[in-house]
Amino acid sequence: MWKVSEEIRERMQAVSEALKAAESVYIFSHIVADGDALGSCAALCRAMRRAGKKADILFEDDIPDNLKFLDRGYVRFVDEDTQLEKRDLCVALDCSSTSRFPKREHLFRSAGEKTVCIDHHISRQDMADLNYVDSTASATAEIMYELLLVMGEEPDREIGEAIYTGIATDTGNFQYTNTTKKTHLITAELYDLGIDTKKINVILYQSVRPQKLRLRNLILDEMEMFCGGLASIAWVTLEMYREADAKVDESDGINAVLRDIRGVEIGVFLREKHKDEIKVGMRSKEYLDVSEICAGMGGGGHRHAAGCTLHCTLPEAIPRVKDAVEKALSAFQAENPGLLKSPEE
Amino acid sequence: MWKVSEEIRERMQAVSEALKAAESVYIFSHIVADGDALGSCAALCRAMRRAGKKADILFEDDIPDNLKFLDRGYVRFVDEDTQLEKRDLCVALDCSSTSRFPKREHLFRSAGEKTVCIDHHISRQDMADLNYVDSTASATAEIMYELLLVMGEEPDREIGEAIYTGIATDTGNFQYTNTTKKTHLITAELYDLGIDTKKINVILYQSVRPQKLRLRNLILDEMEMFCGGLASIAWVTLEMYREADAKVDESDGINAVLRDIRGVEIGVFLREKHKDEIKVGMRSKEYLDVSEICAGMGGGGHRHAAGCTLHCTLPEAIPRVKDAVEKALSAFQAENPGLLKSPEE
Repeated sequence: MWKVSEEIRERMQAVSEALKAAESVYIFSHIVADGDALGSCAALCRAMRRAGKKADILFEDDIPDNLKFLDRGYVRFVDEDTQLEKRDLCVALDCSSTSRFPKREHLFRSAGEKTVCIDHHISRQDMADLNYVDSTASATAEIMYELLLVMGEEPDREIGEAIYTGIATDTGNFQYTNTTKKTHLITAELYDLGIDTKKINVILYQSVRPQKLRLRNLILDEMEMFCGGLASIAWVTLEMYREADAKVDESDGINAVLRDIRGVEIGVFLREKHKDEIKVGMRSKEYLDVSEICAGMGGGGHRHAAGCTLHCTLPEAIPRVKDAVEKALSAFQAENPGLLKSPEE
Repeated sequence: MWKVSEEIRERMQAVSEALKAAESVYIFSHIVADGDALGSCAALCRAMRRAGKKADILFEDDIPDNLKFLDRGYVRFVDEDTQLEKRDLCVALDCSSTSRFPKREHLFRSAGEKTVCIDHHISRQDMADLNYVDSTASATAEIMYELLLVMGEEPDREIGEAIYTGIATDTGNFQYTNTTKKTHLITAELYDLGIDTKKINVILYQSVRPQKLRLRNLILDEMEMFCGGLASIAWVTLEMYREADAKVDESDGINAVLRDIRGVEIGVFLREKHKDEIKVGMRSKEYLDVSEICAGMGGGGHRHAAGCTLHCTLPEAIPRVKDAVEKALSAFQAENPGLLKSPEE
């Protein structure tokens, strides 16, 4: 069995004790849930219910189709007007700010005697009464695995599949640099629980709707390279969704495609949410800090993945974003001559 | 350090002793090398040279661009007329038949005192004097890691990166069902060697030429679903390669895209090699044995990945292949009612 280090065991102590003492919890995560958000929530909810406690995951938006298998009657949908009975704890997983679940903020703040936050994102300030944040963990699900061991809750197959989903999706299948030796060692142990990786991978990656492929084709048909091939940009309009008969989340993943082009350091994707509201997503491959570029346009995020919202039309947004990227790349090249090689040179 | 089981240690004994006793080797793998083929070869070549022995990898076709980083002066290109000095061993990795390297068959058969085969593919008969085949291994690179330990050759960073490349590529980044607990435990250990997974993943997955995206778009624009959505088919013509300014190997991977569509059990991809020579690739998701379907058209392969060559034009090949797939799916459904659910029903 995986041995949690003494240091981590100690740091987890307060959160572990609070969860063990609690008889009832509400579990929260960010909107537009991904595999790690719902995977971590499902693992904790399952463990708490198995221990005879009241536990529910509260959601304010849809569960993506390919993650529905994780919800075994755990999720309750609520909105800004929902009032709920008070419970011992409100636990937020995989997010460190209530702005990530705006319609549930009032519940997080008032429906629990105490609040807890468990996350692997770097955060500027503590959001809860008790906080466990470890930015070296590949996923919140990786933290959750250790936390359950510290709590003395033995993981079972269902918990294993939820943890696996969180780790596999947040690491791009063990590909991103957040993947560590520990990530692989913990994943190895999940196999002992009898997890069905075939089933999970078919659900996660082999259930793409043809409409999504059509949408992707429409988007990539319009893709442009700029900055001599160091950057790529593409966009999706409301009309393109209609033409492809696709759902909004079916443009997800395009940002990675734009970044994965040879020579590209920054990939930019613009999504027309309304005629005058454009969501900008930015990814960098190696050197540039795109959270800085997005901060300059009122957004933020991580070093290699960030975003912002522009209140203008798409034809207005495109040159504005390109200009910001060009300036950042020029500044970087001036400071680091020769590091970025334009593939078109 | 990873402990090789007593059973495997014993089974590897003969091959290990032969490699330890050899002062000089030629290393072979199959044409159209993938990450596991070249990764395994590079790991062995490096270990042998480091031990002061003569070792070379013999190739008869190009090394794919994204695998060139593994060749640190190891590869010599030869053809059917090449004559070489005799060495102690000829070692074939990741293939169990000399038909997989036709222009080097004479060298494998005559340039070594003895022949060795190490592979993880199921094979019907032994190809060499000494054979180690373990079809439960995720990759030949996974076998190679254990073999080096049994030989007493400590892996270093360069060997670790070659092994990692083999395992990561042959498991679809730890996604396919050949991935086991052991795969993750061995991979975890590679991190201790200081392998640069970021560098490797940028080379393997984040260096896509824009021409490849253009080609993919052209191909998917023509994609068709058939058998009520249980099958998908697409093709690439010589003209499409020209239009996208793409290389032949840049249509690789489309087969997986076709299989990964929701509800699709069989994905079929046809490549016009010449006007009257069509390469057919077939993938199945869960139940169908596509090697049987391809065998009926003169080809073969694995249960979930197979192929054949048709000597006719593309417009002739398309209905022929669709017909074979339709028959196989109908027969399967008659025998297993209700197992395959057509997404269009």
